[in-house]
Amino acid sequence: MRPSSSPPDRAAGLFDGVLAAGDVRAATGDAAWVRALLDAEAALARAAARTGLAAGADADAVVAACAGLVVDPGELGAEAAATGNPVVPLIRRLRAAVPGDAARLVHRGATSQDIVDTAAMLVARRALEPLLADLGAAAGCAAALAREHRGTLVAGRTLLQQAVPTTFGLIAAGWLTGLDTARRRLAEVRDHRLAAQLGGAAGTLAAYAPDDGTGDAGVAMLAAYSAELGLAEPELPWHTERTRIADLATALGTAAGAVAKVARDLVLFAQTEVGEVAEAGDAGGSSTLPHKHNPIRAISAAAAAAQAPGLVATLLAAMAHEHQRAAGGWHAEWLPLRALLRSTGSAAFQLRAALECLRVDAARMRGNLDLTHGALLAERVAAALVPALGDRAHPVVRAAVARGDLAGDPAITARLDPARLAALLAPDTYVGSAGALIDRALRAAAR
Amino acid sequence: MRPSSSPPDRAAGLFDGVLAAGDVRAATGDAAWVRALLDAEAALARAAARTGLAAGADADAVVAACAGLVVDPGELGAEAAATGNPVVPLIRRLRAAVPGDAARLVHRGATSQDIVDTAAMLVARRALEPLLADLGAAAGCAAALAREHRGTLVAGRTLLQQAVPTTFGLIAAGWLTGLDTARRRLAEVRDHRLAAQLGGAAGTLAAYAPDDGTGDAGVAMLAAYSAELGLAEPELPWHTERTRIADLATALGTAAGAVAKVARDLVLFAQTEVGEVAEAGDAGGSSTLPHKHNPIRAISAAAAAAQAPGLVATLLAAMAHEHQRAAGGWHAEWLPLRALLRSTGSAAFQLRAALECLRVDAARMRGNLDLTHGALLAERVAAALVPALGDRAHPVVRAAVARGDLAGDPAITARLDPARLAALLAPDTYVGSAGALIDRALRAAAR
Amino acid sequence: MRPSSSPPDRAAGLFDGVLAAGDVRAATGDAAWVRALLDAEAALARAAARTGLAAGADADAVVAACAGLVVDPGELGAEAAATGNPVVPLIRRLRAAVPGDAARLVHRGATSQDIVDTAAMLVARRALEPLLADLGAAAGCAAALAREHRGTLVAGRTLLQQAVPTTFGLIAAGWLTGLDTARRRLAEVRDHRLAAQLGGAAGTLAAYAPDDGTGDAGVAMLAAYSAELGLAEPELPWHTERTRIADLATALGTAAGAVAKVARDLVLFAQTEVGEVAEAGDAGGSSTLPHKHNPIRAISAAAAAAQAPGLVATLLAAMAHEHQRAAGGWHAEWLPLRALLRSTGSAAFQLRAALECLRVDAARMRGNLDLTHGALLAERVAAALVPALGDRAHPVVRAAVARGDLAGDPAITARLDPARLAALLAPDTYVGSAGALIDRALRAAAR
Amino acid sequence: MRPSSSPPDRAAGLFDGVLAAGDVRAATGDAAWVRALLDAEAALARAAARTGLAAGADADAVVAACAGLVVDPGELGAEAAATGNPVVPLIRRLRAAVPGDAARLVHRGATSQDIVDTAAMLVARRALEPLLADLGAAAGCAAALAREHRGTLVAGRTLLQQAVPTTFGLIAAGWLTGLDTARRRLAEVRDHRLAAQLGGAAGTLAAYAPDDGTGDAGVAMLAAYSAELGLAEPELPWHTERTRIADLATALGTAAGAVAKVARDLVLFAQTEVGEVAEAGDAGGSSTLPHKHNPIRAISAAAAAAQAPGLVATLLAAMAHEHQRAAGGWHAEWLPLRALLRSTGSAAFQLRAALECLRVDAARMRGNLDLTHGALLAERVAAALVPALGDRAHPVVRAAVARGDLAGDPAITARLDPARLAALLAPDTYVGSAGALIDRALRAAAR
Repeated sequence: MRPSSSPPDRAAGLFDGVLAAGDVRAATGDAAWVRALLDAEAALARAAARTGLAAGADADAVVAACAGLVVDPGELGAEAAATGNPVVPLIRRLRAAVPGDAARLVHRGATSQDIVDTAAMLVARRALEPLLADLGAAAGCAAALAREHRGTLVAGRTLLQQAVPTTFGLIAAGWLTGLDTARRRLAEVRDHRLAAQLGGAAGTLAAYAPDDGTGDAGVAMLAAYSAELGLAEPELPWHTERTRIADLATALGTAAGAVAKVARDLVLFAQTEVGEVAEAGDAGGSSTLPHKHNPIRAISAAAAAAQAPGLVATLLAAMAHEHQRAAGGWHAEWLPLRALLRSTGSAAFQLRAALECLRVDAARMRGNLDLTHGALLAERVAAALVPALGDRAHPVVRAAVARGDLAGDPAITARLDPARLAALLAPDTYVGSAGALIDRALRAAAR
Repeated sequence: MRPSSSPPDRAAGLFDGVLAAGDVRAATGDAAWVRALLDAEAALARAAARTGLAAGADADAVVAACAGLVVDPGELGAEAAATGNPVVPLIRRLRAAVPGDAARLVHRGATSQDIVDTAAMLVARRALEPLLADLGAAAGCAAALAREHRGTLVAGRTLLQQAVPTTFGLIAAGWLTGLDTARRRLAEVRDHRLAAQLGGAAGTLAAYAPDDGTGDAGVAMLAAYSAELGLAEPELPWHTERTRIADLATALGTAAGAVAKVARDLVLFAQTEVGEVAEAGDAGGSSTLPHKHNPIRAISAAAAAAQAPGLVATLLAAMAHEHQRAAGGWHAEWLPLRALLRSTGSAAFQLRAALECLRVDAARMRGNLDLTHGALLAERVAAALVPALGDRAHPVVRAAVARGDLAGDPAITARLDPARLAALLAPDTYVGSAGALIDRALRAAAR
Repeated sequence: MRPSSSPPDRAAGLFDGVLAAGDVRAATGDAAWVRALLDAEAALARAAARTGLAAGADADAVVAACAGLVVDPGELGAEAAATGNPVVPLIRRLRAAVPGDAARLVHRGATSQDIVDTAAMLVARRALEPLLADLGAAAGCAAALAREHRGTLVAGRTLLQQAVPTTFGLIAAGWLTGLDTARRRLAEVRDHRLAAQLGGAAGTLAAYAPDDGTGDAGVAMLAAYSAELGLAEPELPWHTERTRIADLATALGTAAGAVAKVARDLVLFAQTEVGEVAEAGDAGGSSTLPHKHNPIRAISAAAAAAQAPGLVATLLAAMAHEHQRAAGGWHAEWLPLRALLRSTGSAAFQLRAALECLRVDAARMRGNLDLTHGALLAERVAAALVPALGDRAHPVVRAAVARGDLAGDPAITARLDPARLAALLAPDTYVGSAGALIDRALRAAAR
Repeated sequence: MRPSSSPPDRAAGLFDGVLAAGDVRAATGDAAWVRALLDAEAALARAAARTGLAAGADADAVVAACAGLVVDPGELGAEAAATGNPVVPLIRRLRAAVPGDAARLVHRGATSQDIVDTAAMLVARRALEPLLADLGAAAGCAAALAREHRGTLVAGRTLLQQAVPTTFGLIAAGWLTGLDTARRRLAEVRDHRLAAQLGGAAGTLAAYAPDDGTGDAGVAMLAAYSAELGLAEPELPWHTERTRIADLATALGTAAGAVAKVARDLVLFAQTEVGEVAEAGDAGGSSTLPHKHNPIRAISAAAAAAQAPGLVATLLAAMAHEHQRAAGGWHAEWLPLRALLRSTGSAAFQLRAALECLRVDAARMRGNLDLTHGALLAERVAAALVPALGDRAHPVVRAAVARGDLAGDPAITARLDPARLAALLAPDTYVGSAGALIDRALRAAAR
């Protein structure tokens, strides 16, 4: 079921341009939530008609009221304080909007959590659309960089020290793998773990059974309701079995981490002293420091992604829901789930923007590779000396590097002729399987 | 400096009645933030005049513009994306609102973070007013309960098993101690750790120095600016030295924890099978289950408090700000700091509400104490038997408890005469120093 | 590849009986780690022989040395301080233990992180064996309870208030679903996401290439090494692409949450005033309070599970590994990954123990259901009155419940004849689809 | 009270050289914990004698047994599983070690948590000694750097871009402020918030009262016990009022954050392309890459500090202890508290080591400052042009910077004579109040 009507894009907030950018914000806003709550109520009425528990005309009346009801989320929120959730004031309004006896069909047999949990799943599914699109586009940018810079030499850096050469394409392939892996897991969670919720007061679906307690009306309702919503049908009501929330939260947290890794690299590459990438365009300028060009999209992505681990922890810590409905653990999920969707969505959006405008300075990469005068090939020269020098190979090379003259050190030139040494010191032939690895990453992401 | 004008109370959101209740929400909203940003800019202009760096008339013009400027936070937020913070678009508007050359005084010598950090401190200080009031009122309720129920017997429960008798007053005294301790620490942070921020682009205050770099104009500005704001004057700009944020965050997290303890107890006391306390009034009723009376305020307090640990972790994890201004760690603070103020504020507000309407059922407490037929005094009976039975005292008592007949067990009645045994089994004489401890807690909180 | 020899079970620590119980502790101990590090080095030598980069005899010599080397982890740890990881001192010892030129094969072409990451995967895979077994056994206990107590009536409790009847079997089925879902995800991560690590200094596998940089020796090595280890072959070296760690961590965190839910329920069911379940046996007794019977295994499970969310957050927050090898983010993983495996393992072990000895008191469950004199059926009675009373049905029932006399209220008995009312008030016919739902859960878990 | 005997330094573990370095590890080890548990039992016996509840000779016997008892922590841990804490098996051994009736004095009137909580406080106090010493020494190094490099010019960097000049002394002063602030708070917590724990089974101290329940023996015991231990005397038993744990945890977390900031800066300064600082000495070398010089101590400090936020969250989340003794929340504190002390201690130790061997390359700092050919002074030049150019000053400067010729741009040289322009472009006169601010930081830290 698609949302009955698009939620209006409520005004963004003061920090949202930086930290809640992209379409996930509106998709998780109050209006979207109210829409999802009403969609759940409408699906409930339709399911009752489908399973013969209600007249079709009554269901139609409820569905129409759900489609037409205009609700102020703030009012609902204020009234929610008395019962602890917004469904009670919502169905009061909804019943008033349904003419005649059909009003009794509203919310029949359901408990508030049935509606709120279902709405949370709808909100998550809808919010994942732009989120997955942004994540996929960012991965696509990484793939393009991997292809384009298959042979672009750059210093491989470990512990923030130049180590040995690599290619920028291989680095981008690593970004691709992280982003694509995280995207696939999120899509899997969306497809299989976002389920409808319906159980009634204690999860038995008792209110749908005839008085003698026989029959499977409850199970039929669960199936029909899930089908109406296009959400997975759960084996059981999951009011206090929260692995679905955990799966969603942790897939988001993992995606945020994958984004954070790329964003961190971009910020480091963009340092004044490194200068190997920059974000093109006007953004990132400083009002008073004209020479600065801050990689502001990557920074914003990093800042948004940094929200995730704590939010995931909150959601995992809330999993111990008591008995048939939690005394606080359930309510504790609402805000961090929204914040997590938004932060991860914003991180993906900003990273996509950063990568889409990325300027790669291959010449600067090559120049930085030479800063240490060949020392990045020391490992290779040492290996070549081992046959002649055995265990002394490494100390000899170490001493030459310390003197800053790997190419001219007599202890080395005595064992390696100039052509051989020059070949050993050529970084373009010391990137091993970089090309093959890039191809593997591209193939895997294309599957 | 008080806010130039009260922020309008922007509409609450769908979940705010439960999770962002009380006055902290508005005090941390976008309007309050914009107000605080403008207050910081106004203080900067005033400080420039006070230190002789600007004409008084120019400062007046800026201050007037700050007071009168009407800004849409959402617009500001959208424009903030390009530079990574909302100050750049704000000062663009502010300069346009200041007539003539006085416009050049706007933001003079400051960097965006000077204004945002200062605003964060102002927002925190203002939000702490209702928060501390609610926390103090909750502590006051606990104190009243401690006094009123000084002698009200109740089962002391350990690992959720009845253990030995205690008094409800002593339990309330424990709540008081936690709430009052947390409140004092928060007040201490408010008074000493909320500081003005001013440093300019790299924290040297260089823009205030004459061209030859001499003089202490920068330090004078820092002092004047802090004084204008009524915030502590820092020794140094603290752009990337974030122990102030950590102190604020952790004091909030501790307060949330203190609230959570009381809320947890209330929910447990209110269980159907325990029934020793209830929240009076209409809230907490169930729409369809008339016998239910959910302790909804305590539950809401618990749910809000559960947000805190993850948010504190996010703020602590963000402390490693790079160099003179962080590439993401700073931006990462804004949302969790707001969420933490609101969640802790809401938790305090809801707990206060719960305690203010608490109905204590002393008869039920007494009745529950007898559920185990005296077994809660077994420890005492065993101690009284040690002189006669030595190491056999505990096994003898254990066997009697297992038979459910502590008062009539022959192995016991043979050693303790009926009057002595009856005295030993009277719970009201086995609450030790409860009264004295209550008095200590009340005295400490009154200091 | 199986561990070359079982790690000795190093002495448990002071808190391990409670918080690191079960076989996961030893499987994640220092000895197990050293074994895994040596297994990785052995696999590297074998892979070099398999791909023709080394002589088979040399590889045999290295493998033999790996099998025979006895290392003090503490010594290794102390020496690790100088380089930041324990591989450098380990290969020093290993080279000394390999006779002749074969010593040069040790660690050929690898970087320290290749070995540590691979060892982490081996340790995780080995530790997951007992962990999954305990989780599976706990799920099995829940399944048995679901079957056995298919019709055992118990109060469904929401917000810790009795709500409507349910069956203990359905409750156990919910436990089963959570535990089984978490177990399946963990098994999936074990099977598909625990991969070998091999990339060399910057992840290009350059050290395996001939001097002219041609050929796919590196990729062949990666395949052979992975096959030797029985770990998944990654598309790319994942030195700084940490979604594998995130997948493992979050699956563990989710499992801990699933355990925590069951443990929380057990502790609540075991309360003195509820008394519906107990852990049989001697454990849980109090030294001085003979009447107490603490559900100590469930409590220990809850305490261990509570470690998880914070540890997951630490691992997610560490994901932003810089460039080709992180400056701290990698080292930051070792302790929380170990602690998370142990805590989750201990939680599963303790929950299994709790469930294996669980005593269910069906009579007490039935008794507690009657505490409110039929009020738990009020929802049903009201529904039956709607045809006669319309919107007045709920207020009428509410008033009757308030008077505590649902069965005798004249406003009700006037509309429902005694037999009908008695039938409505029979909880055994108001558990809806409980049986069908149990069957669904059992079937799903058996798939 | 000092520990009765120094705990033996149990062998360090595989990761301890990197992540649990310094003396905090041993001070928080199992042996130190057992010692602290026995110290608590000894203090209890002494207090009983001091208050007249026991004979002095009996107390002496218990104290002697405590001093002499040799216990295997692993055995204790294994036996602890049955009761959920190690005190029950410990006092079994202790009673066996005390001759005659004096054995009955062992543990008199106390509950297990009294002893474990008190021991936790003793362990914390003892562990804080080396931790505070390392933190203080690190702060001392920062102070020395601030003094020595009062005038050493360096690029101020914001968002990892060079911004305007500052001095390395001012940067070090910022480090000093963070470290010193964190150290003071930790010392304050040590002095005022580490308290003895004594309450008996439900916190009433009932076991010390005479049978008629009168008198203040319990309160006297609490005072005497606290005095014996040299720990603060609490107003109330704090079995389930955990703000003390929160204060300790959050002060540690803040200290870890302060360390992390400095470590991050050091790692960034040490990058190959920046090269402004290095850790002297042999550590940090790479086995195969001789040109690398990893700032391994700073990296280790960062990695250890990264453990803190999640651990703090775990401890804050555990604060909602139920009733008079928590069902899991208490046990959940033990491991994270130990891990937090060790991680923070190790971070401080490693940072101290990094700073003690820090090599500062002032020439490289000066050289990097010139990389952008004067652009770091653009802000200043623009300000000087405002009187002549008004709002056009910034665009003019921006264009000149874009052309890379600030000094020779005709639009600028037309308004500023060469001497003036040269003065404006001299970074040493554009560090504003850096010197004065350094002095303030040094004075504040010396107070």
